[in-house]
Amino acid sequence: SSSGGFRALDCEAVKHYVAARPGLQQRVGPADSVESWSVREVGDGNINFVFIVEGPAGSLCVKQALPYVRCVGESWPLTQDRVRIESSALVEEAACCPDHVPAVYLYDKDMAIIAMRYLAPPFLILRRGLVAGAVYPRLAEHLAAFLAGTLFHTSLIKLDSTTFRQKVAQYENNEMCRLTEQVIFTEPYTAAKNNRWTSPQLDADVAELQSDVAARVAASELKGLFCGRPQALLHGDLHTGSIMVTDTETSVIDPEFAFYGPMAFDVGKILANLLLAYFASDGLEGAPGERDAQRAWLLSCFRDTWTGFAAAFSRLWSEHGSSGDLYPAGLTGPGAPCGGEVLAACQASFLAQLFHETVQFMGAFVIRRLVGIAHVADMDSISDADVRATCERRALRFGRRLLVEGSRGGLASIETLAEAAAAARAAST
Amino acid sequence: SSSGGFRALDCEAVKHYVAARPGLQQRVGPADSVESWSVREVGDGNINFVFIVEGPAGSLCVKQALPYVRCVGESWPLTQDRVRIESSALVEEAACCPDHVPAVYLYDKDMAIIAMRYLAPPFLILRRGLVAGAVYPRLAEHLAAFLAGTLFHTSLIKLDSTTFRQKVAQYENNEMCRLTEQVIFTEPYTAAKNNRWTSPQLDADVAELQSDVAARVAASELKGLFCGRPQALLHGDLHTGSIMVTDTETSVIDPEFAFYGPMAFDVGKILANLLLAYFASDGLEGAPGERDAQRAWLLSCFRDTWTGFAAAFSRLWSEHGSSGDLYPAGLTGPGAPCGGEVLAACQASFLAQLFHETVQFMGAFVIRRLVGIAHVADMDSISDADVRATCERRALRFGRRLLVEGSRGGLASIETLAEAAAAARAAST
Ligand SMILES: Nc1ncnc2c1ncn2[C@@H]1O[C@H](COP(=O)(O)OP(=O)(O)O)[C@@H](O)[C@H]1O
Ligand SMILES: Nc1ncnc2c1ncn2[C@@H]1O[C@H](COP(=O)(O)OP(=O)(O)O)[C@@H](O)[C@H]1O
Ligand SMILES: [Mg+2]
Ligand SMILES: [Mg+2]
Ligand SMILES: [Mg+2]
Ligand SMILES: [Mg+2]
Ligand SMILES: [Mg+2]
Repeated sequence: SSSGGFRALDCEAVKHYVAARPGLQQRVGPADSVESWSVREVGDGNINFVFIVEGPAGSLCVKQALPYVRCVGESWPLTQDRVRIESSALVEEAACCPDHVPAVYLYDKDMAIIAMRYLAPPFLILRRGLVAGAVYPRLAEHLAAFLAGTLFHTSLIKLDSTTFRQKVAQYENNEMCRLTEQVIFTEPYTAAKNNRWTSPQLDADVAELQSDVAARVAASELKGLFCGRPQALLHGDLHTGSIMVTDTETSVIDPEFAFYGPMAFDVGKILANLLLAYFASDGLEGAPGERDAQRAWLLSCFRDTWTGFAAAFSRLWSEHGSSGDLYPAGLTGPGAPCGGEVLAACQASFLAQLFHETVQFMGAFVIRRLVGIAHVADMDSISDADVRATCERRALRFGRRLLVEGSRGGLASIETLAEAAAAARAAST
Repeated sequence: SSSGGFRALDCEAVKHYVAARPGLQQRVGPADSVESWSVREVGDGNINFVFIVEGPAGSLCVKQALPYVRCVGESWPLTQDRVRIESSALVEEAACCPDHVPAVYLYDKDMAIIAMRYLAPPFLILRRGLVAGAVYPRLAEHLAAFLAGTLFHTSLIKLDSTTFRQKVAQYENNEMCRLTEQVIFTEPYTAAKNNRWTSPQLDADVAELQSDVAARVAASELKGLFCGRPQALLHGDLHTGSIMVTDTETSVIDPEFAFYGPMAFDVGKILANLLLAYFASDGLEGAPGERDAQRAWLLSCFRDTWTGFAAAFSRLWSEHGSSGDLYPAGLTGPGAPCGGEVLAACQASFLAQLFHETVQFMGAFVIRRLVGIAHVADMDSISDADVRATCERRALRFGRRLLVEGSRGGLASIETLAEAAAAARAAST
C-alpha cells in the first residue's frame, strides 16, 4: 500500500532500494554482487524499522519510519515528518560533533527513509553494555563533548536571533513533542492506563507519587519548560538506548524527537539514565559486590559528564559567544567595560540555572521509567520481582527528591548529588 | 512607486482608497458625499502613518506601514509583514477583550493597510492625558482585564500544545523582535550611538550604568527570556502611548510588535510606563504638591493593575485551565487526587515567578526610556533640564534596582514595590 510514493519495505525490498541508488549501492558492493548481499532488520526500538545491509564493499544502515508507532501498530498514528527532523538533526549534530554522530548518506522524504553509516560491532547500544556490566572509560568525555557542542552551537549564545528563530521554526516537531508531554510529564502523575510498574510491590509507592502535590507541581513546571523554552536544538531522546559505544568511541543515534527546547532536558535525560543503570546494578550482579567497580565508574561517569559538559560549554562560549546575539561583544567582549567580569558572571548565572533545571528533569526521567509506559532494560532485566522492586523503589524515591528539590536542599553541586545517589542506593527500603 | 501593488498613500489617496471599498465607504458616507469627507494624517508614533477619515455617516482610521521606519526614513528598512502581525493580534485580542481593542474593518496585505474603528475624542492617548495631569479611575481595572484576558487565553494553560505551537509560529515577528532586542536590551548598556540622555547632567549616571556588571548580566538574562520564552501572545509595545482612554473607557492599539514571549514583558512594560509618569510628575507641576492627587492615583493604579491582573488571571485559570495542556484536569481538576491543592500551588508558584520577572523587565523598560534611543514625553515635556535630570536620575536609580534585585531585597510584593517607588521619588539626588 502506498501514499505519495510511500511503501513499507521488508528486507528484500531494502536490498533493491539500495541497489537502485548508485550512491548507496557503491558503498555495499558492485551491481553484480547484489544477490550476495545480506539484509537484516535489527530495530529494537519502539518506533521504527532499522535494516543493516552488508556486501563485499561495505555496509550501511537503512532506517524507515512507518506512519504509526511500531510497537503499538496502526492504532497509534505518528507523523513521518519525524524522519525530516531526524535527518536534519543528524546533519546539524555532525557539524558540531562529527566524531559522535553517524554520517547520513541519504534522506528520502517520500519513503521516510534515512540511509546512514552502519555502526558495526564492536559498536553496541550503551544500555546493553551497561546491563552486561561493562564500563566505558571515555564515555563521560564524549557525552560532555556531544552535549556542549550541539547545545552551544545551536543556541542564541552562538547564533544571531534571525538564524535562531529560523531554526526554532524549522525544528517544530509537534507530534513527537506531544508524545513526550504525555508519557513523560503527564501520565506518570495521573491514573493513566498506559502506566505500569512492578506490582503489587510498588503499588503503595505509585499511589503516594500520584497524590504528591509537590511532585505534580514540579512536573507541571517542567512541562512548561519543555513546551516554552526554545534554548537549543535538543536531541530529544538522549537515553542510553540512543547511544552506541565501543571501548574508545561514542556515537549518538535516533534524534527523531529533536526540537528547540531547554538544554536541561538533554543533559538531565542522559544523566537520569546513568542513574537508572546505577540503581539497577544491585539487581543485576551475580554476587553482592560483583559490580562494585562498575558502580563506582557509573557514579564518576555521572559526575564527569556534567563537569566536562559545563567546562566544555564555558570554553565554547568564551571562544565563540561574541558572535551570537545573547551576549554580544559590546557587553561581554574584551573591549567592553569590565567585559571579562560580565562574561564570567553571565556564565556562572547561566550554568547555575541550567544545573538546577537539569536536576529536576533528571528526577522526572527517572520516575517515568519506573511508573510510565516505557521502562528500561536495566530494571526489566532483573528477573526477581522483589529484587527489582527494591532497586526501583530506591530510584523512585531519589527521583522524586530530585524533581521536587532541584538543586536545593543539599543537592547544590554534582558532587553532593552523586553522594546522595550513593546514599539512596544504600538505603534499606 | 510600487512593489507588488504597494504604494504609499497621502490624505487624498486615502479618501479614494476608502471610497473604492464599499465595506469601508458605507461607514463614512454615501458615495455621492465623498468630496465632502475630511482626511487627516495624525500619526505621532515613530513608525507608521495613521489617517482619520470622517464623513456624514461616520469615521474610520486607516493605518499604513511603509517599508521603513517613519521617523528615520528609508535608511532604516522595516518589514511590512508587521501589518499582518498587527491585524491578527488586534483580532485575537478583541476575541479575548472586545471592550478594550478597536474593531478591525479590513486588512490589506498588498497595501500594508489596516482600517479600524476611529477612537474619536474624548479618546486621547493615555500618555498625553498623564502629561496633562489627568487621572483615570477605571484604568487599572481595564488594564488588568486586558492583560489577564490576552495573556491567559493565548497561553498553554488555556490551549492544547498543537494550537499553541501553531500560534507561536504564526506570530513569528523576527524584525520587530530584533528591534526590541537592540534598543531595549542591548544599546542602553553599551556605548551605542543611538543612545541619548539629558547631558551633561546624567553623564556620570550613564557611565555608571554602562560599567555596572550586575545590570548588564540582568539585562542579558532578560534578553534571553525575550527571545526564548514563548509563553503567551504579547502585545509587545504596551506603553502609555499605545493606549487610548476616556474617563470610562480604555482601548489598546498598535500591536505591531506582537509575538509569543514572556508574559512579564507586557505586564512590566505598562507598569514601567506608569512609574515613568510618576517620577516625571514633579517636573510637570506648576507648584510643588499641585500633582499630589495624580501621583497618589498613579501609585495606586500601578498597584491595582498588578493586583487586578493576578486576580483575573487566576480566575480565568481556575475556570478554563483544564482545557489546556499545561495543567490538565487529570492533574489539577476537581476529580484528581488533591486536585484543588495542586491547582492552588501551581498558581502560586506561577504568579511568584511572573512577579519576579515583571519587576526585572520593569527596571529595563524604565532605564531604556532615559538612556536609549526612544524617550517618553512625560520626561521630555519637562523643559528645565536640571529639573528633568533630577526626575530622570531618581527613575534611573530605581529602574536599576528593579532590574538587578528583581523581587528580592525588600521588593517582594507589589505593595513594597510601590512604597519603594515613593521613597525613590522623595530621594534627594
Ligand atoms: N547507524 C546504526 N548502526 C548500527 N545499528 C543501528 C544504527 N541505527 C540504529 N541501529 C540499531 O537499531 C536499533 C533501533 O534504532 P533507533 O534509531 O534507536 O530506532 P527507534 O527510533 O525505533 O528507537 C538501535 O537500538 C540499534 O541497535
Ligand atoms: N484607532 C485609532 N483611533 C484614533 N486614533 C488613532 C487610532 N490608531 C492610531 N491613532 C493615532 O495615531 C497615533 C499613531 O498610531 P500608532 O498605531 O501608535 O502608530 P505607530 O505604530 O506609528 O506608533 C496614535 O498615537 C493615535 O494618536
Ligand atoms: Mg531508539
Ligand atoms: Mg525513548
Ligand atoms: Mg527513536
Ligand atoms: Mg504607537
Ligand atoms: Mg507602533
